[in-house]
Amino acid sequence: MKKANKKASAAIIVIGNEILSGRTQDVNVSFLAKWLNELGVRVGEVRIIEDNEKVIIDTIKKVKNNFKYIFTTGGIGPTHDDITSKSIAKTFKLSFGYHKEAYDILEKYYKPGEFNEGRKKMAMIPKGAKLIYNPSSGAPGFIVKNVFCLPGVPSILKSMVYGLSNQIVGGKKILSKTVSVHTVESEIAKSLQGVQNRSKNVEIGSYPFFRFGKIGVSIVLRSTEKKQIDECYKQIINFLKKKEIKIIER
Amino acid sequence: MKKANKKASAAIIVIGNEILSGRTQDVNVSFLAKWLNELGVRVGEVRIIEDNEKVIIDTIKKVKNNFKYIFTTGGIGPTHDDITSKSIAKTFKLSFGYHKEAYDILEKYYKPGEFNEGRKKMAMIPKGAKLIYNPSSGAPGFIVKNVFCLPGVPSILKSMVYGLSNQIVGGKKILSKTVSVHTVESEIAKSLQGVQNRSKNVEIGSYPFFRFGKIGVSIVLRSTEKKQIDECYKQIINFLKKKEIKIIER
Repeated sequence: MKKANKKASAAIIVIGNEILSGRTQDVNVSFLAKWLNELGVRVGEVRIIEDNEKVIIDTIKKVKNNFKYIFTTGGIGPTHDDITSKSIAKTFKLSFGYHKEAYDILEKYYKPGEFNEGRKKMAMIPKGAKLIYNPSSGAPGFIVKNVFCLPGVPSILKSMVYGLSNQIVGGKKILSKTVSVHTVESEIAKSLQGVQNRSKNVEIGSYPFFRFGKIGVSIVLRSTEKKQIDECYKQIINFLKKKEIKIIER
Repeated sequence: MKKANKKASAAIIVIGNEILSGRTQDVNVSFLAKWLNELGVRVGEVRIIEDNEKVIIDTIKKVKNNFKYIFTTGGIGPTHDDITSKSIAKTFKLSFGYHKEAYDILEKYYKPGEFNEGRKKMAMIPKGAKLIYNPSSGAPGFIVKNVFCLPGVPSILKSMVYGLSNQIVGGKKILSKTVSVHTVESEIAKSLQGVQNRSKNVEIGSYPFFRFGKIGVSIVLRSTEKKQIDECYKQIINFLKKKEIKIIER
């Protein structure tokens, strides 16, 4: 159950001091994870790192062989602190300069005279990279080997990602089922452990919550095997009934 | 500017499949980062990892010597998927069992007869660990060497963290100043680069945003040196004035 499926796994590398300082709340990880799950790709690890060339290069080198796909977010804009593209070029020892297709896209995107130096910087992409088109603001992302580089602005990232779905080869779709109950975790811990012991291919998570002033637990079942989720689910419903624990939603 | 101050730096390790699957949006990183910044501690890296013993042990071993403080969130509750405490014990080769002080706290916290098996699990903490008291729900977190283990539920984490402040020895407080303007990044990229080149001790970040249907940029200055931030800030205000770019807020 616990082994990551390397054949269809991903890591997300969030590049940005603004996330590390707490100034900006990341929302891309959760969005990308759900999108990848739909495609049958499981996110195995996330790292949030500094806008620092050495750190970016070291991190990509460390993770790129452990996962089928690597997604980076942030650092591909026009300002001095946007250093992802250059760092990825160095990671893969590719030359770095104007990418003809990206340059043409941006030149057409802006009005005559508006394609200034800052904007031209966004056409600097590692040589040979495949572009990720950007329907919201022109400037493309790019793919080098298994590394997909996306921007940090969530609305732009979202608009770019859907066009990528056909380039991701996932495994079986990861299914999930949730039962939320009014109880405390310790009341169901032993029974849940029993169900987990009997269901090695289902990942059972238990997450306490406070909602409308009441304590509850969401039990989440995740697996690629629908039949095994259903079997697990039945066992859980049974022990909840025996314990007379109220199900809020399922 | 880019070198992390190892003397007062931290890494945050978020332990939880529910964050990696996108089901739960992490909010602890941003909270912890801001709290640490106030204490003069800079967060240098964040990792989000699976509820997997081997992964937890390997990750802690890799990061514990690179940062002054390591904070983990998640996995210290009563259910089968809560494996942080045991994993930390193994990381530091400490025996793992009932921690007398934690046991006494929990025994007093619950009504007679309510201190059941699941709850007793929360008293299992690495031997010799120092407790982190929990004013909201009894079950303590703990500290082993430089590793601080906190729960994943944000409201509980917050209630525990404030009591920790006197145990963190930070460096100079990290100050920040923000100027938000109605413009696009490419208009100010060159001038900002100039200011950055002249101000090596100030980290200048440029973050585009969309608000009320308008595009804007927040320029964020961060440094431990107030005088240098002010100098940098003056240069930015000057070039914005020259470019006739409207300042929204400062």
